Amino acid sequence: MIDPLVIFTPSGKRGHFPVGTPILTAARQLGVDLDSVCGGRGICSKCQVSPSFGEFPKHGVTVSTSALSPWNSVEQRYDDIRGLPKGRRLGCQATVQGDIVVDVPPESQVHRQVVRKAASARDIIMDPATKLYFVTVVEPDMHEPSGDLERLADALREQWQITDLNAPLPVLRKLQKALRKGNWEVTVAMHRGSLDDRHQLLDIWPGFHEGRIYGLAIDLGSTTIAAHLCDLRNGTVLASSGVMNPQIRFGEDLMSRVSYAMMNPGGEVEMTAAVREAINALTIEIATEAKIEADQILEAVFVCNPVMHHLLLGIDPVELGQAPFALATSDAMALAAREMELTAMNACAQIFILPCIAGHVGADAAAVALSEEPGKSEDLVLIVDVGTNAEILLGNTTRVLACSSPTGPAFEGAQISSGQRAAPGAIERVEIDPATKEPRFKVIGSDVWSTDPDFDTATQITGICGSGIIEAVAEMRMAGIVDDKGLIGSAEQTGTLRCVETGRTHSYVLHDGTALGGPLISVTQGDIRAIQLAKSALYAGARLLMDEMGVDHVDRITLAGAFGAHISPKHAMVLGMIPDAPLDKVTSAGNAAGTGARIALCSVDARRAIAKTVRQITKVETAIAPKFQDHFVNANAIPHATDPFPHLLSVVTLPQVSFNLGGGGTVDADGKRRRRARPRD
Amino acid sequence: MIDPLVIFTPSGKRGHFPVGTPILTAARQLGVDLDSVCGGRGICSKCQVSPSFGEFPKHGVTVSTSALSPWNSVEQRYDDIRGLPKGRRLGCQATVQGDIVVDVPPESQVHRQVVRKAASARDIIMDPATKLYFVTVVEPDMHEPSGDLERLADALREQWQITDLNAPLPVLRKLQKALRKGNWEVTVAMHRGSLDDRHQLLDIWPGFHEGRIYGLAIDLGSTTIAAHLCDLRNGTVLASSGVMNPQIRFGEDLMSRVSYAMMNPGGEVEMTAAVREAINALTIEIATEAKIEADQILEAVFVCNPVMHHLLLGIDPVELGQAPFALATSDAMALAAREMELTAMNACAQIFILPCIAGHVGADAAAVALSEEPGKSEDLVLIVDVGTNAEILLGNTTRVLACSSPTGPAFEGAQISSGQRAAPGAIERVEIDPATKEPRFKVIGSDVWSTDPDFDTATQITGICGSGIIEAVAEMRMAGIVDDKGLIGSAEQTGTLRCVETGRTHSYVLHDGTALGGPLISVTQGDIRAIQLAKSALYAGARLLMDEMGVDHVDRITLAGAFGAHISPKHAMVLGMIPDAPLDKVTSAGNAAGTGARIALCSVDARRAIAKTVRQITKVETAIAPKFQDHFVNANAIPHATDPFPHLLSVVTLPQVSFNLGGGGTVDADGKRRRRARPRD
Repeated sequence: MIDPLVIFTPSGKRGHFPVGTPILTAARQLGVDLDSVCGGRGICSKCQVSPSFGEFPKHGVTVSTSALSPWNSVEQRYDDIRGLPKGRRLGCQATVQGDIVVDVPPESQVHRQVVRKAASARDIIMDPATKLYFVTVVEPDMHEPSGDLERLADALREQWQITDLNAPLPVLRKLQKALRKGNWEVTVAMHRGSLDDRHQLLDIWPGFHEGRIYGLAIDLGSTTIAAHLCDLRNGTVLASSGVMNPQIRFGEDLMSRVSYAMMNPGGEVEMTAAVREAINALTIEIATEAKIEADQILEAVFVCNPVMHHLLLGIDPVELGQAPFALATSDAMALAAREMELTAMNACAQIFILPCIAGHVGADAAAVALSEEPGKSEDLVLIVDVGTNAEILLGNTTRVLACSSPTGPAFEGAQISSGQRAAPGAIERVEIDPATKEPRFKVIGSDVWSTDPDFDTATQITGICGSGIIEAVAEMRMAGIVDDKGLIGSAEQTGTLRCVETGRTHSYVLHDGTALGGPLISVTQGDIRAIQLAKSALYAGARLLMDEMGVDHVDRITLAGAFGAHISPKHAMVLGMIPDAPLDKVTSAGNAAGTGARIALCSVDARRAIAKTVRQITKVETAIAPKFQDHFVNANAIPHATDPFPHLLSVVTLPQVSFNLGGGGTVDADGKRRRRARPRD
Repeated sequence: MIDPLVIFTPSGKRGHFPVGTPILTAARQLGVDLDSVCGGRGICSKCQVSPSFGEFPKHGVTVSTSALSPWNSVEQRYDDIRGLPKGRRLGCQATVQGDIVVDVPPESQVHRQVVRKAASARDIIMDPATKLYFVTVVEPDMHEPSGDLERLADALREQWQITDLNAPLPVLRKLQKALRKGNWEVTVAMHRGSLDDRHQLLDIWPGFHEGRIYGLAIDLGSTTIAAHLCDLRNGTVLASSGVMNPQIRFGEDLMSRVSYAMMNPGGEVEMTAAVREAINALTIEIATEAKIEADQILEAVFVCNPVMHHLLLGIDPVELGQAPFALATSDAMALAAREMELTAMNACAQIFILPCIAGHVGADAAAVALSEEPGKSEDLVLIVDVGTNAEILLGNTTRVLACSSPTGPAFEGAQISSGQRAAPGAIERVEIDPATKEPRFKVIGSDVWSTDPDFDTATQITGICGSGIIEAVAEMRMAGIVDDKGLIGSAEQTGTLRCVETGRTHSYVLHDGTALGGPLISVTQGDIRAIQLAKSALYAGARLLMDEMGVDHVDRITLAGAFGAHISPKHAMVLGMIPDAPLDKVTSAGNAAGTGARIALCSVDARRAIAKTVRQITKVETAIAPKFQDHFVNANAIPHATDPFPHLLSVVTLPQVSFNLGGGGTVDADGKRRRRARPRD
C-alpha cells in the first residue's frame, strides 16, 4: 500500500509519508518553509497550519476529515491558554492519517515577505542572522564530565543541525543558571555569521522564551544619526528615532572633521567617543520609546559615508582627506558591539557594517545599491543620493557604475544667504507667477501656501532650506527673472520691484519680514552662483558615468536621501541638476540608504549579496577625470546650452531672456549696499 | 641534460632544480624546514645555510666550489652590517649552479627543537601560533579603490599563502600609518587559530621589524600565580615570576572561594577582578624584569584548576562546589585577552586556556598530561600532582585514566599543629636516628643540617612545611616512635624523652625554641591523623585508578607539582602515600603543569593534541566510587597491612612496634594539657 500523499500549499511541495508522521516532520523533509522555535514540542505554536478537506481535482486528491489525527491535548491546552485561530492545527501535533492538503499561512513561514509601504520597492524576504531556538540539554553526569556548554552544543547539533557553536564570555556566564532554572530546557538566540557560517550564542533564557528579539538599522550621517528598531522575527519597524551627530562640534562637514583629526593629535579618538556615546543614548531612547529592554537588541546594521565609517570604528580618517583617498578597509565588517563600545544594547550584540564602494563612495551608497538594485534593472537607471557629497549610481543588468561628486553644502541650505537646515520656519516650497512675478511659498510646520487666506501671519519664517532654494531658483528661471546664464535681471528688465540692486548684481526678494523684526529673505546672485556650482557638480558626475557607460540618456532617475524626497523633479530638471528624462520617470526612493540598512538587518542573504555586488561595481573617480571638469564647466548654465532637455521642454516654457552684470544700484562709500524701495509681502 | 641535484641535510630531502633556482625556493618546494620572515628579500637573514663542497660518496655526488652562485652584494651588505658566520650563505640569494649539498643549521629551522633542562622530559618542537611575516603591499590606486586592509590580505595570500585574514580594531587603527611609514613594506604578527586555522592580525610594524615577540605561560594556582615569559621564536624562557593569588583574601582554599561566591551575590565578580588585576600586574612586572615592552607580549597560555578556570573567565563557580560538579565549559578555549580585561599585554593578544578534564580535574591536570604524556608511555606510569586536591593520572599507550582526590591541605602544612607554607624558617627535611631517636633537620633558607657545627643557632625556625611533616612522620615510623597504626609511643615505650604526653596521646618534640622565645615544634598525634587522612585519600585515588585499569602495581611513579619536587620518594612510600614501586622508578617532574603551559605556548600542534587527548582520558569520579571509600579506610595504616610494599621493604626496615592510646598525661580541669618535662634541642 502506498503511504498517504501530503501536499503543502502555497509551495505545492508534495510527498508520501507513513501514517503517523507529524506534519512538521513532513514539511522539513520536503523543505517546506514551516517555522518552529521549540523543535516540535508543542510549545511555541509557530508551526500552525490550516488543513483543507474535500475534493481537490487540481491536486488529484480527495481529503477526508480523518486524514489528520484528532485534535489532541497539547493543542487543546494551547487553545485554552492562548487561542488557536479557527481551522488551525499545530504542525508538530497533527499527524498524517490519509491523503491531505495543508496550507502554511504566511505567519507560519520563516522566510515570509515583509510588505513594504512603497509599492515600487522590492519586498524583503526575512532571513535574519539571529534566530531563537528552543533546545533540551542532557543533564550533567559525573561519569561523563563534559561541560554544560559542550552538552548544549551537542543538543543544538542533534536538535537543530547547528554543527558549530561559539559562546562569548557574557553569555557563558549566564549559561549554568539558565539551564538549571529552565530544568535543562532553554531558548537561545543564535547568530549566524554574516560573512561566514559560524554560529555565535548571543543570549540564553530558561525554558521557552516568549520575548522578542530586536535589531537596529542605523543610518549614521554626518549631521544626523537615524535608527529604526526592527523586530527580528518579522521585520516590523517598532520605532524610529534620530539624534544630531555630536561630531558637529568638531566640524560641520566631513572635511572639517578630517582636518580636526589632522590638526589635533587624538582628535579622531574624541570624535569616535562622541559618536559612540550618541549611538548608546539613541539605543536607550528608542528602546524606551518602544517599551522594550535595550538588551533585547541583539543586532545593529550600520550604513554611513567613508569618513563616518572610519570615525565609528576609531580609525583616523586622515587618508580620506587626500588623494588617493585610501580606505583603511573597504569590505563589509562583522564584529561584536562590545568591540566598538556600543554597550547600551545586549552584551553580545553583533554589528554588521555594509562595505564601502570607494574612498568617496561609502557604505551608505552601498545601502542605496542594496535597496534600489540598479544591477537588477532592465532600464538604465540613474540613482542620485544628494547631500554634501552626492553619491551617484548608474546601471542596469549589464553593469553598474558609481561615483561621488563634491556638490558642497549648498543643497542643504548652507552657503545660501538666507539658507538654513530643513526645520520648522524654513521655506521649503516656492512658486512664482510668470505674469505677476509674485511668489508664494510654504513653510515647514505649516500646511498652507503663504498667499492662502488661512495662512497664519504669525508663522515664524526663519530662512530657506535646500529644496526651497532649488524651487526658488527654478521658478525664477521659468518666470523670466533669471536668464540661462544664471543672472538675475533688474527691476526694469524683469518688471518687478522684487528685483533689487545689491552692488553690481540683483537680488529677488522672496519675503520681507523686517517691519515685524523678522528677516529679509531674498535669493541673491551669490546664492544662484552657489546653486549653479552644486548642480553643475551633480550633473557633471552623472554625465561622467553616462560617458563611461557610453550613453547620452537614461531611462529613469531615482532621487534618494531625505533631501531627494523633497525635491520636485521638474524643478531639479529646470535647474539642470539631473539629466533630461521623462518627468514621470523621475521618482523619489525616500531614505534609500536607511531602507538598505533595514534590508541588511533582516537578511543575511542580502548582506552577502551586497558584499559581492559592491565588488562588481565600477568605481569612477571624479577628482582625476578630465572630462568631469569639462562637464562641470559646460553645466553652469540653467539649463545649459550644450545639452538639450527635450523631455523638460515638452512640459515647461523657459523664457528667452538675457541679462547683464552691472547696471542699477550703487555701493556706498562705506561698502554697504544701498537698497531701492522694495515691496512688502 | 638533467637539472642539478640539491640535497639538504640533516633532513636528507633532495630534488633536481634548474640552474639559477634560489636555495630557499628549492627548500620550500621540497618541504625542507628553512625559515624566512622577509620572504626571500635578503633582509631577515633567517634562511642562512651552510653549503658543503667536495666528495659525498654517501649521497653519490661531487660538489664543486662553483655549485652555488658567487657571494653577492646583498650578502656582502648583510655581512658588513651584521656579520654572517663563516661558511654561511643566505638561502634566498645563493642560487643552484650544480649538484650541491646544503646544511640547514638548527637556528635556521622554523620547527627547531627547544632543549629542555630535564633530560627525561620530551623536547618541545617549536610551532608557535604567532609568527612574523614581512610583506610588500600594493599602493592604493584611485582607479581600483580597495581598502588598505584588503590589499594587505592580497599580499599575504600571494606572498605567504595565508588565505584568510581577520583584523581586530586595535590593529586596524595602526594599519594605514604603518603602511605609509614603511613605504608599503610592513612586518605583521599573524596568529593562527589554536582550534581552527583562521588567521588574525595581532600587530603591525613599518618595514622589516627586528623586534621580538613574546608569550606568557601562566600557571594560575589557588595560592600563587606563576608566569614564564617565553620568546615566541625559539621558546627560550627570558624571565619567570610569581605573585600571590589575591583571591586568598576571599578564602584560603578553593571551596571557601566557592562558598564566598555562594554567600555573597557578585562575589565571583570581585574575585575575577582581583585575579585579572594580579595577572596584569604580573605581566608588567615580568616585562620590566626582562626589559621588554609589555605590548610585545602577544600570547598567553593558562593552566589552572576548574575553580580558578571559572573565576578567571568570570563564571560563578558555584556548580563546582556540589555534585555533579558540572563545568560551565570543559573544552579548550581560545579568545582575545581584551575579552578578559587582560589589558597589560598587547591590545590584540590572544589567550589559550587548556581544556579541563572534569569538574575536579582541571586544565592543570591536562597540562601535566601534555608534559608527561602518560598516553605515550610503554610503561604503566602513575602521575601524582599533589596539592589541596591531588590530581592523579594513570596510563600507558593503551589507556589513560584520571581522577582527583580530596587530600585536603595537610600536605601543604595546613591543619598541622606547627605547620606552615614552604617559606624561609620552615623545617623541610627531617632525619631521626633509629638508635638515639634524636632528630636533625634542615630549614628553608639554610643549607646545613641543624646538628652541623656550621648551623647558625640564630636561624629563625618558624614551623614545619609539607615535605617536612612527611619526612618527620616517616622517620618516626622508621625509628619506631610511631607504630603501623599511626600511634606515637610514650617516652617509656620509645625510649626518648622527646615523646611527651599531651592529654591521652603523645607528641614528638622536633625542636624547642621556647627558651629563646621561639616556638615549640612537635609532631602531635593529631598531626599524624591529618597526614594519615591525606595520604589515605591520595593512595585510595591511585588504587581506584589501578582497579579501573585492572592492575595491582605500576611500573613507575612521577611526582609532579612544586611540592612533588620536594618530597622524598622513600619517605612518601614509607608513609604509604603512593603505591609500592622500585624507588629508582619514583621521580619528580618538577612543575609539570607549568611545563605543559610552556609546551602549549610554543606549539599549536600541542594545543590541538591535548584538546584531543583530554577527550580520550577516562575520568573516574572518586566522590561516587564505593571502592574509593574501601581503599581510603584500608590505607589508614603506615604502611597499611592489606597492601604489601615489597620494593620498599627491600630497602628500609620498619620496626615491629605497637602502641596504645591512653596512658601518660592528664588533662587539666580547665582543659589545658599539662606537659611533662621535655628535652631541649
